[in-house]
Amino acid sequence: MTRLQPGLPQGAQDALASCLQAALDPQVAPAFLQIDAAGAQAAARAIDQACAAGRPRPPLGGLAVVVKDLFDVAGQVTAGGSRRLAGAAPARADAPAVARLRAAGAVLIGRAHMNEFAYSGVGLNPHHPVLANPASARLEPGGPRRVPGGSSSGSAAAVAGGAAWAGLGSDTGGSLRIPAALQGLVGFKPTQSAIPREGMLPLAPTLDTVGAITLSVRDAALLDAVLRGAPLPRRDRPLAALRLGLPETLMLEALDPRLARGFEAALARLRAAGARIDPLPLPELGELAAMNALGGFPAAEAWAWHRQALETQPDAYDPRVAARIRRGASQSAADYLDLQRARAAWIGRVDAAIAGFDALLSPTVPDLPPLLDPLLPAAPGAPATEAEARDAAFFAVNARLLRNPTVVNVLDGCAISLPAQAPGEPPLGLMLWAGRGRDAGLLDAARAVETALAAAHAGAAA
Amino acid sequence: MTRLQPGLPQGAQDALASCLQAALDPQVAPAFLQIDAAGAQAAARAIDQACAAGRPRPPLGGLAVVVKDLFDVAGQVTAGGSRRLAGAAPARADAPAVARLRAAGAVLIGRAHMNEFAYSGVGLNPHHPVLANPASARLEPGGPRRVPGGSSSGSAAAVAGGAAWAGLGSDTGGSLRIPAALQGLVGFKPTQSAIPREGMLPLAPTLDTVGAITLSVRDAALLDAVLRGAPLPRRDRPLAALRLGLPETLMLEALDPRLARGFEAALARLRAAGARIDPLPLPELGELAAMNALGGFPAAEAWAWHRQALETQPDAYDPRVAARIRRGASQSAADYLDLQRARAAWIGRVDAAIAGFDALLSPTVPDLPPLLDPLLPAAPGAPATEAEARDAAFFAVNARLLRNPTVVNVLDGCAISLPAQAPGEPPLGLMLWAGRGRDAGLLDAARAVETALAAAHAGAAA
Repeated sequence: MTRLQPGLPQGAQDALASCLQAALDPQVAPAFLQIDAAGAQAAARAIDQACAAGRPRPPLGGLAVVVKDLFDVAGQVTAGGSRRLAGAAPARADAPAVARLRAAGAVLIGRAHMNEFAYSGVGLNPHHPVLANPASARLEPGGPRRVPGGSSSGSAAAVAGGAAWAGLGSDTGGSLRIPAALQGLVGFKPTQSAIPREGMLPLAPTLDTVGAITLSVRDAALLDAVLRGAPLPRRDRPLAALRLGLPETLMLEALDPRLARGFEAALARLRAAGARIDPLPLPELGELAAMNALGGFPAAEAWAWHRQALETQPDAYDPRVAARIRRGASQSAADYLDLQRARAAWIGRVDAAIAGFDALLSPTVPDLPPLLDPLLPAAPGAPATEAEARDAAFFAVNARLLRNPTVVNVLDGCAISLPAQAPGEPPLGLMLWAGRGRDAGLLDAARAVETALAAAHAGAAA
Repeated sequence: MTRLQPGLPQGAQDALASCLQAALDPQVAPAFLQIDAAGAQAAARAIDQACAAGRPRPPLGGLAVVVKDLFDVAGQVTAGGSRRLAGAAPARADAPAVARLRAAGAVLIGRAHMNEFAYSGVGLNPHHPVLANPASARLEPGGPRRVPGGSSSGSAAAVAGGAAWAGLGSDTGGSLRIPAALQGLVGFKPTQSAIPREGMLPLAPTLDTVGAITLSVRDAALLDAVLRGAPLPRRDRPLAALRLGLPETLMLEALDPRLARGFEAALARLRAAGARIDPLPLPELGELAAMNALGGFPAAEAWAWHRQALETQPDAYDPRVAARIRRGASQSAADYLDLQRARAAWIGRVDAAIAGFDALLSPTVPDLPPLLDPLLPAAPGAPATEAEARDAAFFAVNARLLRNPTVVNVLDGCAISLPAQAPGEPPLGLMLWAGRGRDAGLLDAARAVETALAAAHAGAAA
């Protein structure tokens, strides 16, 4: 497949044509809820013409970007992957994040598949054709379908399938990092305040963060500069100069054995390249389950947003999403205020414990890409026990996938998931994370780690 | 009584002695929950000595200020007027607002009476000796006791009684302006964000505002400059140059007839002095009752803060305060989030409607100072019907007193209550108010109004 690289002189139209072709692959097509071929072609043509006329290529000039279905794009319906909003009026203006992409020369290729209203980490949506993990499909031809991860499932799959250079998404509890980890991509959740959140459907405004899924840390940094309106300062630091921490509580618990071996192998490669990685108990992470026992901010805030519609149009919802949202009904205002207070105190303690580290290393998720078909809802008419068992399996996988990345949302920090598997191995996400506002240093560390892993893998292959 | 005026050369110790003497008057004494005579004398002595040594007098040099019992003062117990916290450990540091007063040379004379935990506008506290309205007592010698207004009841009464130059207080729904209105004083609630709120017991952090009660607008502006850390720009504007609005909805409804006549007379005096006062329907104010039907932010946020103590030490609470706090238990997290959203939208609409006015004029409260004794709790052993009737009367008066001033807290605006009664008439508060951050213009308007009313009253007396 052809990829347009920033700064290279290929035509935007050629690159777009390649993406549009890739989007037709039956394994990739479900990544798109909508393809705007004509609009994208017009945008690409305009950029090529401007460049031909001697104007400088804008930062993202001609790069195809897919937009998660929860962002406003002028003239398109913002449905959040739902049936409920599928008939809503089209957005009258771009969300600020979308407007920044467009102003930087991105070609908006279409709207990406997502979990309904972003409320799950698995990547299943009963209202749309099943999207299976394209990276797993490539690795295991003819093998079983595996979940793409969510909720920015299509923003990742379009990139993994060569149908977009990057995917715009959102991350409330891991929704950028989980699909990136399961599909061998880079998912960067910046500090929440870095990128404007207007013009998007909310899941939990306290935690919702805008970010992107890309192929590399370099692309992530480029896109992040566009989205936040200015590039972060960059400092090239050798791996050996970084102080990296390895939090033990929660993050390393109950790992799938194959994932644990792959994660250990990645750490060993980094250590061999000179990295100093210090174990860190960080027992504070063990408090999160109790703090979020009533569903946390997502349950309360999603219930506030959806409760009226859940009463009037309950059948419009994915029953699994509706069940998760309804958990918020039991939270009292005082519970919510207690949660805010507990979170603020917890952030203070965790920030103090991690202040000495450039970044912390954790598996993004504790599993390799899980099988998809056992998690689909039971067919109509199936025995109730079958339906219950499938729902239980779905919720169990969902909880496992969200477990690690959510920590950073509660922390109001920043995190990036990098592919860390050896060549030919299933996707394995390595999450680097840090506290609020430490995005620049995090990207520096991610560059050093990415470079070291690439060198190690190249060396092993040679 | 002797009053120290800023800039005048009287000694701080002399002025303090006069305040301490006034504080012993049996009608004034209940304004103080605690008098720190030794500490105040030492502070006044230090200031006099510094001045005698040629150092410049600090902005508040030697002026006695009483502090509402909910602010931290180093070495004193912050009890919030409660029995529950009366045995708490003394504060280790001054609240920032208190520290700014002290740094500006204020002499902290003691801790002021207040409703328990600031949760009422009447000014009754069953844990302490009854504080009756000193202004009413002066006006009607031998007459019935009238309520002082709350919750900053003692911060006002100490000033009205000559025992302090100013009172530091807080205002969540009118707690500075109500006692100022009922006692013939000036109460200024600045925009919430203007003054730091650390080191104080919360009632409802969404609305809690720090401010002061003084004798004049000049004193209010002087104290405000100290509390916010810098003076607001001042612009002397003639009354005729101001555009003043008279909101009709809610603010003018069901006024006590005598108060209505006094209020109309004040408006007539201002108009005679050249003021342009335009009626303004402002129907948005009629939405507040529905918006706050579940108790609003105070119920939810006070319940979150108190619920544990209300379970373990219910008898430590004033039953009326406990009843009001318990209303918050029925608010769900979604109700609270809906309230936040509704408030934000409402602020936008009201701000748009009042943007053209320098200030709006309203009666601070719809009543002249109400009788106190019928609102006291029934004596032990009284018939249940008697207790219920008294409680009902208390809650009715409380709701009426809070009705108008609360509007400005929900608006996140600024407001000042000025005495507008003719000489010899019962205290009548005229509230000038405006939107968020418009404090400087509000104080300009208040100066012009205060000057015009003083001139009119002097003219009428001559």
